[in-house]
Amino acid sequence: MADEKIPNYFREKMQRGEVASTLSVKMVRTNDIIMMAKSAGFDGVMIDMEHSSFDFETTSQLCIAALGIGITPIVRSPSKNSSYIARILDGGALGVIVPHVKTVQDVKDIVEAAKFTPVGKRSAGGGLPHLQYRSPPAEVANSLCNEATLVIPMIETLEALEAVNEIAAVPGVDALFMGSSDMTAEMGIPGEYDNKKLMDAYERMISACTRNGKFAGVGGLQTRLDLAEKVCGMGAGWISSAMDSALLFGAVSQKGKEMKELNNRVQQKSRK
Amino acid sequence: MADEKIPNYFREKMQRGEVASTLSVKMVRTNDIIMMAKSAGFDGVMIDMEHSSFDFETTSQLCIAALGIGITPIVRSPSKNSSYIARILDGGALGVIVPHVKTVQDVKDIVEAAKFTPVGKRSAGGGLPHLQYRSPPAEVANSLCNEATLVIPMIETLEALEAVNEIAAVPGVDALFMGSSDMTAEMGIPGEYDNKKLMDAYERMISACTRNGKFAGVGGLQTRLDLAEKVCGMGAGWISSAMDSALLFGAVSQKGKEMKELNNRVQQKSRK
Amino acid sequence: MADEKIPNYFREKMQRGEVASTLSVKMVRTNDIIMMAKSAGFDGVMIDMEHSSFDFETTSQLCIAALGIGITPIVRSPSKNSSYIARILDGGALGVIVPHVKTVQDVKDIVEAAKFTPVGKRSAGGGLPHLQYRSPPAEVANSLCNEATLVIPMIETLEALEAVNEIAAVPGVDALFMGSSDMTAEMGIPGEYDNKKLMDAYERMISACTRNGKFAGVGGLQTRLDLAEKVCGMGAGWISSAMDSALLFGAVSQKGKEMKELNNRVQQKSRK
Amino acid sequence: MADEKIPNYFREKMQRGEVASTLSVKMVRTNDIIMMAKSAGFDGVMIDMEHSSFDFETTSQLCIAALGIGITPIVRSPSKNSSYIARILDGGALGVIVPHVKTVQDVKDIVEAAKFTPVGKRSAGGGLPHLQYRSPPAEVANSLCNEATLVIPMIETLEALEAVNEIAAVPGVDALFMGSSDMTAEMGIPGEYDNKKLMDAYERMISACTRNGKFAGVGGLQTRLDLAEKVCGMGAGWISSAMDSALLFGAVSQKGKEMKELNNRVQQKSRK
Amino acid sequence: MADEKIPNYFREKMQRGEVASTLSVKMVRTNDIIMMAKSAGFDGVMIDMEHSSFDFETTSQLCIAALGIGITPIVRSPSKNSSYIARILDGGALGVIVPHVKTVQDVKDIVEAAKFTPVGKRSAGGGLPHLQYRSPPAEVANSLCNEATLVIPMIETLEALEAVNEIAAVPGVDALFMGSSDMTAEMGIPGEYDNKKLMDAYERMISACTRNGKFAGVGGLQTRLDLAEKVCGMGAGWISSAMDSALLFGAVSQKGKEMKELNNRVQQKSRK
Amino acid sequence: MADEKIPNYFREKMQRGEVASTLSVKMVRTNDIIMMAKSAGFDGVMIDMEHSSFDFETTSQLCIAALGIGITPIVRSPSKNSSYIARILDGGALGVIVPHVKTVQDVKDIVEAAKFTPVGKRSAGGGLPHLQYRSPPAEVANSLCNEATLVIPMIETLEALEAVNEIAAVPGVDALFMGSSDMTAEMGIPGEYDNKKLMDAYERMISACTRNGKFAGVGGLQTRLDLAEKVCGMGAGWISSAMDSALLFGAVSQKGKEMKELNNRVQQKSRK
Repeated sequence: MADEKIPNYFREKMQRGEVASTLSVKMVRTNDIIMMAKSAGFDGVMIDMEHSSFDFETTSQLCIAALGIGITPIVRSPSKNSSYIARILDGGALGVIVPHVKTVQDVKDIVEAAKFTPVGKRSAGGGLPHLQYRSPPAEVANSLCNEATLVIPMIETLEALEAVNEIAAVPGVDALFMGSSDMTAEMGIPGEYDNKKLMDAYERMISACTRNGKFAGVGGLQTRLDLAEKVCGMGAGWISSAMDSALLFGAVSQKGKEMKELNNRVQQKSRK
Repeated sequence: MADEKIPNYFREKMQRGEVASTLSVKMVRTNDIIMMAKSAGFDGVMIDMEHSSFDFETTSQLCIAALGIGITPIVRSPSKNSSYIARILDGGALGVIVPHVKTVQDVKDIVEAAKFTPVGKRSAGGGLPHLQYRSPPAEVANSLCNEATLVIPMIETLEALEAVNEIAAVPGVDALFMGSSDMTAEMGIPGEYDNKKLMDAYERMISACTRNGKFAGVGGLQTRLDLAEKVCGMGAGWISSAMDSALLFGAVSQKGKEMKELNNRVQQKSRK
Repeated sequence: MADEKIPNYFREKMQRGEVASTLSVKMVRTNDIIMMAKSAGFDGVMIDMEHSSFDFETTSQLCIAALGIGITPIVRSPSKNSSYIARILDGGALGVIVPHVKTVQDVKDIVEAAKFTPVGKRSAGGGLPHLQYRSPPAEVANSLCNEATLVIPMIETLEALEAVNEIAAVPGVDALFMGSSDMTAEMGIPGEYDNKKLMDAYERMISACTRNGKFAGVGGLQTRLDLAEKVCGMGAGWISSAMDSALLFGAVSQKGKEMKELNNRVQQKSRK
Repeated sequence: MADEKIPNYFREKMQRGEVASTLSVKMVRTNDIIMMAKSAGFDGVMIDMEHSSFDFETTSQLCIAALGIGITPIVRSPSKNSSYIARILDGGALGVIVPHVKTVQDVKDIVEAAKFTPVGKRSAGGGLPHLQYRSPPAEVANSLCNEATLVIPMIETLEALEAVNEIAAVPGVDALFMGSSDMTAEMGIPGEYDNKKLMDAYERMISACTRNGKFAGVGGLQTRLDLAEKVCGMGAGWISSAMDSALLFGAVSQKGKEMKELNNRVQQKSRK
Repeated sequence: MADEKIPNYFREKMQRGEVASTLSVKMVRTNDIIMMAKSAGFDGVMIDMEHSSFDFETTSQLCIAALGIGITPIVRSPSKNSSYIARILDGGALGVIVPHVKTVQDVKDIVEAAKFTPVGKRSAGGGLPHLQYRSPPAEVANSLCNEATLVIPMIETLEALEAVNEIAAVPGVDALFMGSSDMTAEMGIPGEYDNKKLMDAYERMISACTRNGKFAGVGGLQTRLDLAEKVCGMGAGWISSAMDSALLFGAVSQKGKEMKELNNRVQQKSRK
Repeated sequence: MADEKIPNYFREKMQRGEVASTLSVKMVRTNDIIMMAKSAGFDGVMIDMEHSSFDFETTSQLCIAALGIGITPIVRSPSKNSSYIARILDGGALGVIVPHVKTVQDVKDIVEAAKFTPVGKRSAGGGLPHLQYRSPPAEVANSLCNEATLVIPMIETLEALEAVNEIAAVPGVDALFMGSSDMTAEMGIPGEYDNKKLMDAYERMISACTRNGKFAGVGGLQTRLDLAEKVCGMGAGWISSAMDSALLFGAVSQKGKEMKELNNRVQQKSRK
């Protein structure tokens, strides 16, 4: 069993040519949200350490729960720093998303931090949850982990977009992910999701991915699934399609509004 | 300032003859959910220790946050036991809901545990968050807290329904609350929200409240706001109208479904 | 999927006539221990709220992780009180062990608290992790949960041993569990695991179970697997065979001893 | 080492005829407060689960820290219920204070829950922090724990005061503790600390203790150390003399006041 | 409501020409301390991640509580790294203090990390607690947040003191804050608060602030409010005047000393 | 008492020429593991932030517990960054291990971050747990802390091995520690613990330490205590000899295996 492949359902879905979807988690700190995501049919959870206050302990617990529940845990790191990347992966993640990369060297450093020898130089701590705490020989463990771990730089700076072909070609990179919101800000067209410039950027990233046999993902389109569908038609295989806090606040607000209206109707009736 | 009234916005709304609404909290453990409830226009939060794993520390933190944010914190106790009721109130709650009461004596015991002398016999620990940790003289503190604290027995057993007039008449009781789901189970008509028996029970409880100058609240109608409106027309002043976990799971499920459909459309196109 | 059976691997193993084993958890508060138990081949985890400081939040998270990981979560309640039993089960447990029961009425009360109508009177909170937060109609949900939930009174008082046949016969009881340590204390033979009195007690409980088609489990024999094997030969189907804190302290102590000896050898050599 | 006495510095001080003092902890949840109490010269900490939201996990961690730091951990239970008492002691406490007892039977039940056989019937979970997680034979462990564990009923109801001689005489009771604030409320003289009735109550409790060779403690006199000194002259050996939250709020308020005055002075000068 | 100004009471007080005061929080992890600070009249809390073990989750919860309670949450970052600054602000802070800056470029980087476009390049995560989780259009949100967020470099290195005029002039900087203790260490006069060198440093920083229309704050004078008053006379508008751990330990120590003296007196009397 | 030496039992043991041993902690988050380590005879605990998800709050609590319990807390930092080193030491550690250093400058930076003036430039926050929250004058505090704090760079890169003599000579460095596993990976002989190259590396590091009066420690030999003994013969004074998660998983796995065998035997018998 120690030499069994570590399953990565999220990647497998993309490998089958289907559109994988992830739920971003940045508010609910308990195993519940992982089980909900699985129950609702998501392929992965993107635990967002960049735009949340989640610390490593919480992030790791959610990842371990996801490994058990059978939904792929991916973590967005708040930093390019290798200590973040290594701890995120040691904690149970099957992928790391790194925002705001700028150069090919940034990306090479990330691969070095995320993958074990011979691909990178990740330090071995032993007893990983991905291997059910077993300790197979280093070569076996390294190969299983390298195989199952997704390295995903974000394309959301002009520099990275410029270098997207070289970035996609870096060995050890598995997918690229575009942050649509920050990308439009960088392009000077904040929030203009229908702007041709953004479409061009999608196209450029997706074709770089296709050429290099990497997956392409797109974020920031939670309220624009029409655009999401369009980029999937262009070859994107992954949509980050929802966020726990936004979904919850949307639903709470809607109920609040309904109750206000109910109260108004009751008041009007009682005044008659 | 130590002798200022403790505001209870939830009660004030009912006192103005309006319909107050509460959001049930049983999954999100952080201050965020309290601020969301306020932002969405709810009058109170009902932190549900009966049907959740929330311990006292979490419950108390949410209550203190609610006191600051300006939305009334009410806690549903998992037990009639006086130690639960006292700790819930010491922790910052401005009301305690007690499920499955059966007798008038149950209710008298609850009042004794929840209110300070001369109304009850609650033990004084000093330095309450309701009083911003100040320690005014006992009479002042007791009177302010007694005034602001809502004691709310639930009417969801046949015995309690039978005794609802006496229960409503118990001094120190501020409101009655009907758990529609458990009530129908007790009546042998589980889930039959349109059954006349349930309507009769509402009417009985509401008229007992009206007669005794107490507020009447109804729960379990989250998906039946039409019925909720009806009971408000009958005199109910409070609807427990939503639950964090159900709202979140509903929204997550909906997104999961949309992504499945999106994937299907993308698959069909690519197959052509 | 909402009407799928909830899997209970622990019970299925006993149903196949095999010996199921559980790991008691009372120190490690994180998902790791659940995955370790699964990885090591245990059929269930017994999260021990009686002899630990675990609160409901921790207990529930461990249960949800176990549901996902595919190992049966069973919780030992610190109290016969119905509010404990209901919250433990709402939190994700697939079984509840209740210590120090004395009478048939105790056991009937436990069943009433643990099972939904028509077997008992458990209150419905909706959106359980056992059902992946879905809310099927009450009858479906109740039946699925009742089917999957194990009610397990402990036989460790003289009164309960006396009434063991009637206890085993109570409808809704799924298994009996003997606490060997407390049982010997009650019998005035503390720690005498080889005493015939204890064997007689095992026999009496196991035959009561067999007669009533219930499972029989034995605890307190972690260091006496020879006896455990014996009781399995007598018909017991479940051994509580290890405890996280004792295993860890045993291993830490052993290493400490080895290092002391190593140091002694190094000292002796350096003195020459 | 497994048969070494468990040190109880708090009791040893009283045994030497000195006045022991405890710091009540009800706000700070971390080891820091325990080390501060030790550093400041307190003999024990009274972790207050009655008037705080501290759950078992927090309480137990503070107790274990106190065992290590060398200051006696005593916990005030929110309930007479045996499951509370047993878990508090399993968690690391060297004493349990039980509020609002009324009868001799209450006290006998508490002793039964708190002490192992042959004094009581406390259930043995093994591997206690008091014994550094070692598991000596039951007789040794039971005797060491019974010896080191203080059972302390509170005298704060009229019924208990009436029965104080019989209560003090219950075997297994180690000390009595009077809650001055609740006692005056019960006597109808809330907050009248100079009232002769209260002095009589002190005298009655202290003489009952003296007669039975038990320690006497007094609480609620944090701001009346003059009275505290008086009751020590009467034979009390223990003063609960401070509370973390009150001390902190007092100091924060004082600084706030100083800054307000500083600002006023600066404003006046700048206006000239 | 989405386009309402975010209130910053701390800044408003300085804008009125008054002396604002903050309480440093580095020990108490719960909402209580925030409510205490408000209750005592402080204008802001300075949650100190530099000299405490507070992680992001705790820090964010305290900030959200402060937003609700109506006292300005400011966080001292342990690092100049942009990922710290962004997460601190996303978590609910209305200001970030950055220690040990050395150069004008350091300060420009901090502004870039802390302010949204067009002032800086802070990444947008959406749904901030400052906006009650609402998501107004980017321009609106960015402008409201930029307006309400204080960027506060610390002047406590010789390099920064040398460049203090240029630092104060950096657009987007709102205030400068001098760490008196570290400043004296750097100057080779550790702890010499009455040394003219320190006074000169204060003067230099304050006049740089005045010239550039920025606020000036001073820290490290908790026990020297006489000096604090002096620097306010020189134009400082903010004093960091107290720290939770120091206040608590001071009060606990004082009580410990009083109890020791009480015990001594009691001992002397009893020996007579 | 404020000018008492801070005890460091781990260093004292090495100073006596004995072999000190540490238990690595990376899974159990509670005080229990610290007391277990002490009870088992370890001299120190190495709290591993590099290869775990432990955040600062957990790490600090474990350190404070260790200070009280009388076992030396040492923390492995995930990063060379000064903010990590300072917070780790502020949190209660008596030593910091820094992995993957490469140059003499790295090591000088670490000393600067870890030691107060005049040895380094560590920022003073006041009220450290090492000094029982007291605040002696800066010189006294600095000298006591500098004396008790161990700075321990890891030798596990080829660059560091090359520079090991200069590194050992850096003033303020107290010990060097070799990570055997990462060292073999760097040397291209992953896991070959018997390879002469590794022995040479040990020898080189140990002799550099001896020459400079520093301690030498070795890690990664948990399953090779024979080699550990050998390096102690060569002059190493410290073995990192065990890890909580590996010990626990080893013991859990062993029990799982025994129960599987027991079940097989029971099955075979019952089939006859």
